[in-house]
Amino acid sequence: MNNPYADLVGFTLRLGRRGSGSCSAALEVRPELLNPNGVVHGGALFSMADTVMGAALHTTLEPGEFCATVEIKMHFLQPVSKGRIRCSTRVVQRGRRLAVLESHLSVGRKQVAQALGTFAIFASRPAAPGGTAGAKSRRLSK
Amino acid sequence: MNNPYADLVGFTLRLGRRGSGSCSAALEVRPELLNPNGVVHGGALFSMADTVMGAALHTTLEPGEFCATVEIKMHFLQPVSKGRIRCSTRVVQRGRRLAVLESHLSVGRKQVAQALGTFAIFASRPAAPGGTAGAKSRRLSK
Amino acid sequence: MNNPYADLVGFTLRLGRRGSGSCSAALEVRPELLNPNGVVHGGALFSMADTVMGAALHTTLEPGEFCATVEIKMHFLQPVSKGRIRCSTRVVQRGRRLAVLESHLSVGRKQVAQALGTFAIFASRPAAPGGTAGAKSRRLSK
Amino acid sequence: MNNPYADLVGFTLRLGRRGSGSCSAALEVRPELLNPNGVVHGGALFSMADTVMGAALHTTLEPGEFCATVEIKMHFLQPVSKGRIRCSTRVVQRGRRLAVLESHLSVGRKQVAQALGTFAIFASRPAAPGGTAGAKSRRLSK
Repeated sequence: MNNPYADLVGFTLRLGRRGSGSCSAALEVRPELLNPNGVVHGGALFSMADTVMGAALHTTLEPGEFCATVEIKMHFLQPVSKGRIRCSTRVVQRGRRLAVLESHLSVGRKQVAQALGTFAIFASRPAAPGGTAGAKSRRLSK
Repeated sequence: MNNPYADLVGFTLRLGRRGSGSCSAALEVRPELLNPNGVVHGGALFSMADTVMGAALHTTLEPGEFCATVEIKMHFLQPVSKGRIRCSTRVVQRGRRLAVLESHLSVGRKQVAQALGTFAIFASRPAAPGGTAGAKSRRLSK
Repeated sequence: MNNPYADLVGFTLRLGRRGSGSCSAALEVRPELLNPNGVVHGGALFSMADTVMGAALHTTLEPGEFCATVEIKMHFLQPVSKGRIRCSTRVVQRGRRLAVLESHLSVGRKQVAQALGTFAIFASRPAAPGGTAGAKSRRLSK
Repeated sequence: MNNPYADLVGFTLRLGRRGSGSCSAALEVRPELLNPNGVVHGGALFSMADTVMGAALHTTLEPGEFCATVEIKMHFLQPVSKGRIRCSTRVVQRGRRLAVLESHLSVGRKQVAQALGTFAIFASRPAAPGGTAGAKSRRLSK
């Protein structure tokens, strides 16, 4: 699964086995992840949580199905300025069309963020990138 | 205001005047912002909204005060595969210790995401990055 | 539309015309709506916002369709201890299966709360109350 | 702790011991809690979760301190049409000025809702109900 944006932020995924609904990720703090306060930008943490949720849900999809984020709320509990950030996730509820997942992010034994989000599950893959037909309905309108 | 992570994602900020509570940002879609579905990763949109909210609130701070994200919820309304993403924000409520802001993201005239979040306002700047004294209390515990 | 819980809390709905996606509500503060701090309980405000969102979306449904709340986040901006609370709503996005709505609550000209939520749209009505077959799939799993 | 609104909705609280950060509640489904779809209104579930979070946090407050809900997001996972709804809560993070809590609601062994919210902690009690001086700053602006 090619994920250019995950490469940009720099985290690595560890996918659970098919059907497990589990996935984790790790991200080493580096200078380009910092915000003006000198701590890791919340967007980097969110990016990791969103990806891990999607990948965890992906392990539960039937062939041909795909999923997309509907909404995620993330709480920032502690600032992070160095170390290795780990993200784990849990499927709270898996319906036929919707799923709810939560993610916990931590550095060492300290929890630094928590997220709770909704994903939509679709019966077919979206159109190719840049396509106009499928694009419009890929997120919420399908 | 040096923001390495904003540079990594690649958006540019346009700050409102002192006291205005306004800020906007723009981000040109490029290949490294895409997720495995070929659309801009939600984390890139979130990163922009978080930064714009913080910068808008920053225009309302007294000298010496600083702010940090408590939580943000973002809804992904439409997939984005190309073009220029713009983000605007509005201070919904500005209290002495807490503020609520909302952000709208759009491409052309199409709204693609919406966020609603809480920020904390602190009387003094946090410790230097990597410092241990202030670090623990920078997000929620202060 | 019989709504016993709305009667219990005591708000009245003003539905927009068919297809409008609009609805508003009003609630007079009375002693039994107060929490231990002597202000209107957040649950009463949430109840009104949830109902108004659902009713606004309902005006856009085709015959036979129905909708249910997926999630709502509500911000409490100001305490309310007396007066008439009004709630207005707006459809942020209306997809085929999902919709996003926001609600603003105010007393006089002061905004007291804001909510942003997701609703699911279903092709058929749920089973009768107490039924077991449909009940399980009425919220998220259908 | 007199809570007229909790009495109106009809749930009962079981407070944890001083300092525990724990609280639970129970609510028997009755006809006046139902929405037009014949299932328990989301507002009733939210009301219980909000109260249980506040009461759990209250067990951790110093004498003279008080707390108020900043925001809560609730996910509705399964419809409830009968039985006894139980709500448990957990303090995710307890800072000096802010706390994050989560609540799980279930009927029997089935989880029916989940909430994640932010509370503010204040050094002094708010003004009396109906008072104007303190009222304005009780929620977010203090």
